[in-house]
Amino acid sequence: MYTTGRFIRRVRSVKYVGKHRWFSSTALVLNAPKQYNQNHSKPRYGLTTLTAVTNGLIGWFCSQYFNSSDSSFLQTSTTKITDISSPVYATPNEVSKAIEEITTITGPEYVKNSAGELLNHSDNSSNFHKPNDNERPDMVVYPGSIEEVAEVVKVCYKYHVPMVPFSGGTSIEGHFIPTRRGICIDVSRLNNVIAIHEDDLDVVVQPGVGWQELGEYLEPYGLMFGPDPGPGAMIGGMVATSCSGTNASRYGTMKENVIALKVVLADGTIVKTKNRPRKSSSGYNLTGLFVGSEGTLGIVVEATLKLHVRPENEVVAIVNFNAVGEAAKTVTDVFKKGIQVNAVELMDDRQMKCFAEMGGDGTRKWSDKNLLLFKISGTKNGLKDNLDEIKRICEANNGFNIEVATDEEEKEAIWRARKTQLWTSLDWAKKVIPDARSWPTDVAVPVSALPQMISETVKDIESHGLLTTVVGHVGDGNIHALVIFPKDKLSDAETVVHNMVKRAISYEGTVSGEHGVGIGKREFLEAELGEEAVSTMRRIKMALDPLRLFNPDKIFTIDPNEDRVDNF
Amino acid sequence: MYTTGRFIRRVRSVKYVGKHRWFSSTALVLNAPKQYNQNHSKPRYGLTTLTAVTNGLIGWFCSQYFNSSDSSFLQTSTTKITDISSPVYATPNEVSKAIEEITTITGPEYVKNSAGELLNHSDNSSNFHKPNDNERPDMVVYPGSIEEVAEVVKVCYKYHVPMVPFSGGTSIEGHFIPTRRGICIDVSRLNNVIAIHEDDLDVVVQPGVGWQELGEYLEPYGLMFGPDPGPGAMIGGMVATSCSGTNASRYGTMKENVIALKVVLADGTIVKTKNRPRKSSSGYNLTGLFVGSEGTLGIVVEATLKLHVRPENEVVAIVNFNAVGEAAKTVTDVFKKGIQVNAVELMDDRQMKCFAEMGGDGTRKWSDKNLLLFKISGTKNGLKDNLDEIKRICEANNGFNIEVATDEEEKEAIWRARKTQLWTSLDWAKKVIPDARSWPTDVAVPVSALPQMISETVKDIESHGLLTTVVGHVGDGNIHALVIFPKDKLSDAETVVHNMVKRAISYEGTVSGEHGVGIGKREFLEAELGEEAVSTMRRIKMALDPLRLFNPDKIFTIDPNEDRVDNF
Repeated sequence: MYTTGRFIRRVRSVKYVGKHRWFSSTALVLNAPKQYNQNHSKPRYGLTTLTAVTNGLIGWFCSQYFNSSDSSFLQTSTTKITDISSPVYATPNEVSKAIEEITTITGPEYVKNSAGELLNHSDNSSNFHKPNDNERPDMVVYPGSIEEVAEVVKVCYKYHVPMVPFSGGTSIEGHFIPTRRGICIDVSRLNNVIAIHEDDLDVVVQPGVGWQELGEYLEPYGLMFGPDPGPGAMIGGMVATSCSGTNASRYGTMKENVIALKVVLADGTIVKTKNRPRKSSSGYNLTGLFVGSEGTLGIVVEATLKLHVRPENEVVAIVNFNAVGEAAKTVTDVFKKGIQVNAVELMDDRQMKCFAEMGGDGTRKWSDKNLLLFKISGTKNGLKDNLDEIKRICEANNGFNIEVATDEEEKEAIWRARKTQLWTSLDWAKKVIPDARSWPTDVAVPVSALPQMISETVKDIESHGLLTTVVGHVGDGNIHALVIFPKDKLSDAETVVHNMVKRAISYEGTVSGEHGVGIGKREFLEAELGEEAVSTMRRIKMALDPLRLFNPDKIFTIDPNEDRVDNF
Repeated sequence: MYTTGRFIRRVRSVKYVGKHRWFSSTALVLNAPKQYNQNHSKPRYGLTTLTAVTNGLIGWFCSQYFNSSDSSFLQTSTTKITDISSPVYATPNEVSKAIEEITTITGPEYVKNSAGELLNHSDNSSNFHKPNDNERPDMVVYPGSIEEVAEVVKVCYKYHVPMVPFSGGTSIEGHFIPTRRGICIDVSRLNNVIAIHEDDLDVVVQPGVGWQELGEYLEPYGLMFGPDPGPGAMIGGMVATSCSGTNASRYGTMKENVIALKVVLADGTIVKTKNRPRKSSSGYNLTGLFVGSEGTLGIVVEATLKLHVRPENEVVAIVNFNAVGEAAKTVTDVFKKGIQVNAVELMDDRQMKCFAEMGGDGTRKWSDKNLLLFKISGTKNGLKDNLDEIKRICEANNGFNIEVATDEEEKEAIWRARKTQLWTSLDWAKKVIPDARSWPTDVAVPVSALPQMISETVKDIESHGLLTTVVGHVGDGNIHALVIFPKDKLSDAETVVHNMVKRAISYEGTVSGEHGVGIGKREFLEAELGEEAVSTMRRIKMALDPLRLFNPDKIFTIDPNEDRVDNF
């Protein structure tokens, strides 16, 4: 037997390797088979294996130690795409096992995979970027509580199944295209208002509550929620995209209106980011981080939202301008006077021409000149002061056809025209170009750059033989130029959209004012913010979701070998 | 010679280990010495060593692979304190080398280590939590540009030297105590306004610009910056603590007023978080993440800030109440009427008694009853509407001594009393208790909980035989109760402060409304948000600063073996 005692004596006797005793110890262990085998006929694979494994484990633990446990292999602060390898997701067999376990959590009536379900959870009619044919979820799951969401996530985490969070499904940059298939977690069953605190002006809601339903809920209280995106949007997705709408000028975007969140992280941990006070400096702004993270860092399962008091004495004012620059200057002049309007929107002359031709809803005749629309309120006497000043400023900037609507129906009719302009444009497009396709866009620039941004964009689009109508949340410098083109001019459309985004960046703007990045705008993010910022985002992604399970391939690349072909 | 050919033939011939060929391959490699040695007299240590190292390396790389390169060893989403080991910082020798290299970057006149410098960069007179005697920076460095900041950080990163970012040095929760010594990076040389964009209502500034100096700069433009914290604060620190002040009610905290940042990360990477538009949905809200991160995630080197128009026709109104509850209800009634005040502050009857006794600045005689102070503005006629309504609401809640100051001097005098109440309280404390110590506090609760929060806190403090004066940014539910006590009652002071924080949490409040966590409030963070949220913060910390160099030991623990004794 090769005993420990003889081992130690051998080590000591090995003079000429003196200080290299650890070498010789290993050598001796390795030579043990030799020693042993000289006396025995069969090779001692057991002991040999043991020594091989021992050395392997020594290497393993040295590596872990030098990784300074829980630190990244790379002790830098950012993660470039070249720093990581491709994510490894569940095999089809593992996905099946996951679905089995998920079914026992939610019950079979809440896991669905009809063709319709799978398609509705991959695409919508407004998405310009389409899923490829195989880009469907393996299953759509409808958890019924925060705990069920967490349990479903834990199963997916266990098997490395990708997950796409889903609420209203109204986002339009390919946000919920299931590029890696997996499970679509639809939170629409979590659709309750949990609590309203009138005196604190906040409300606690679940992610499946729609903003329009929330507005109806709040109306009897004389309260309102600020952000007003496209119809059908739900709080979960609104948080994810940091959306806004026409009210942002006064009431802010989601970033300014979310007080606290409950979020389920990729490993199923439930995190509460804040309590209810209106302000807090207690630790990292986790609330702010999750707002706008497009479902890539966690699933929102509860949100505490700021409320505002519905304005009394609100009127709608409209005014035409020959030049967009005059309209934009009117807005900056109004703001610099300290006048707070509830909303200010722009519809350019192309949009107004379209209105004039299509007749709107028939309640009024529209001029085909650039139009500013205001929502203004104030105290009984203060409102008159505001209106007088705004009129003065409009006239100083060559505004004409100034009209103030005080009648409820008339106000609604005017504002409805703005809110439904997209469909008016789409109908007009089909009249002018029978097989027209339309590409909705969204960029934002500092307000002072708005006139050039709009005029250069319109010129570029029209010089390519395409059509456009432009609307803007002009108080925020956010414009939506709808690019309308015949099917055979897709390549021109792509060119002008890319030009628009680059133009916005050149004006110190952003590639997305409110629609988010999704898949559609990924390629531009680095041009806007630089590789360092995108790599910082990727580092945070890898920290909170190391297996890259949540909404893969959105906002920025997470796979250096991604070979997805964009489909539009 | 043990050739590859013979090796392969041997593998194939080893029938009885069949599918375990990898075992047998390794065994054969290991047995090579045996084979070889049977023919030779000396043990082949070289080959033995090679096989040992090979197996070690196999283990090492397997470990790295299964770490899924750049993922944490723990593929979870959070980092508990038990998941990490103690950070390892530079040795004194390495610190010296770092200082040498830093000196060549900034020039010797901008590295300082006089006793005064080191003390001023460890403590201030308002900090209740004091540095221990050895807690001084090794050196204070004053970089003169963004590039110099980045180069200094790179040197510290290279040698693993801790860094504490520093601007105004006015934070009061031990934020800049250099618990691990290292380099204090003082950004006060970066004190320029880079650009003002009047039409866009934003300004780009360096972190060493003070908010008061910024206010003076903006005044000729008729503009203002919202947050108004304690005197001497600079933008860098204001971003770090997400501070606010009396203006937050209308103008928001730093979170609502920072549009974009340039930040230097722990490895020296310079990150721009956003461009200039007022809203953006392009990627993660990095701006929001760095605001309130207390210098633990990066050093702010530039900030783009929102501006507001200075209100015209602003008046100051004050009104007394017998009960705090009546004052608080007045505020919620005013808000629920949709009346936007520019500021609303509360000084409780203990504070007013102190004012009455000390005489203020001698310009007026103060009642010793709870006092609400308003800043109200509006259009010429709108202001009157607002004032009438506010008066009506005050009277409905038993307010009395209603006074409206329109004269500039009188408005200033009243507001100055509020802004200097701390020193009035401190002077009064010394009159009543000669060796008095004072502990400034900061919690926030939903506004509806404010009356109970204040009355229970005052009762608790006074039942321990201590004194207090309470002021509050009552529009945000944020209160500062100054705890005044004789030196021998430190333990009672600690008790009542801890009770106050726990009380705030029990009212769904926060352990810090605006002063931040620093070292002083660390122990309460988990009680407010739960271990999951704190571990999520720690995961983000470990992601962006894996070596834990930036402002160690602040907000939450980063060392499971921390044995620091709090000193106050």
